[in-house]
Amino acid sequence: MVDILHRIGVTASPDDVFTALTTIPGLAGWWTEDTTGDSAVGSVIQFRFPVADGGFDMKVLDAQPGEVVRWEVVDGPEEWIGTQIRFDLSQAGDYTIVLFKHEGWKEPGEFMHHCSTKWATFLMSLKKYVETGTGDPAPHDVQISNWH
Amino acid sequence: MVDILHRIGVTASPDDVFTALTTIPGLAGWWTEDTTGDSAVGSVIQFRFPVADGGFDMKVLDAQPGEVVRWEVVDGPEEWIGTQIRFDLSQAGDYTIVLFKHEGWKEPGEFMHHCSTKWATFLMSLKKYVETGTGDPAPHDVQISNWH
Repeated sequence: MVDILHRIGVTASPDDVFTALTTIPGLAGWWTEDTTGDSAVGSVIQFRFPVADGGFDMKVLDAQPGEVVRWEVVDGPEEWIGTQIRFDLSQAGDYTIVLFKHEGWKEPGEFMHHCSTKWATFLMSLKKYVETGTGDPAPHDVQISNWH
Repeated sequence: MVDILHRIGVTASPDDVFTALTTIPGLAGWWTEDTTGDSAVGSVIQFRFPVADGGFDMKVLDAQPGEVVRWEVVDGPEEWIGTQIRFDLSQAGDYTIVLFKHEGWKEPGEFMHHCSTKWATFLMSLKKYVETGTGDPAPHDVQISNWH
């Protein structure tokens, strides 16, 4: 089992970051504009990416205001299914620190390398979205390679 | 043991990417302007970061033109010492693919989360530097959090 790990600091309150992680408009503001579904705990959110012609369905496992959000991937690329994603929030001065984990990958293959870098750029989009009101969600996301 | 993994694609030749990874001016163009030392295999390169008031000494373990570059961290933050970094290069159409690994971390602590995101932004700086001639090396690097 191998994990993707990241850490960013957002100059905003934990509640503002939590809203960006737990509402459909919030998620559409930084990850992909094509976000639909129900973001309540126990429900499933659909994230779609036009360029890759695919996406992910995430079951919301947990959402503690200002503290943690956890998802399980219930549909998407084979390597993603059954993996879990968590965002742990804490405060450090003017920053809300987001510790990100995408855990439970079976193999550290080339696609996992790609997803790790792509997550970093999307987390920077989350930071920008919460701080300024405008992120870089798909289809306006940063292109990192031939895999988009 | 846990690893940091990334993948980017640079629209340039493997030789151009290799030069950016194996010469002092190349490294200074995307990672930190304060890069000194000898980049030959077996020698040590000093990378210094003014904001963090610290840096890393890397022994060059291997450098195969257009294929792979490997370093070992011989001085720097305690968590980095003894870890290894590798860049594997390959061609895919118009892209040179860089598979990046920073391997041998003892613990997946908060600093490792930070370094993973920071590596992603520096690899995007490498891509920009090779493609356009101008990267975002320290002290002009992208700030991701309170830890810079």
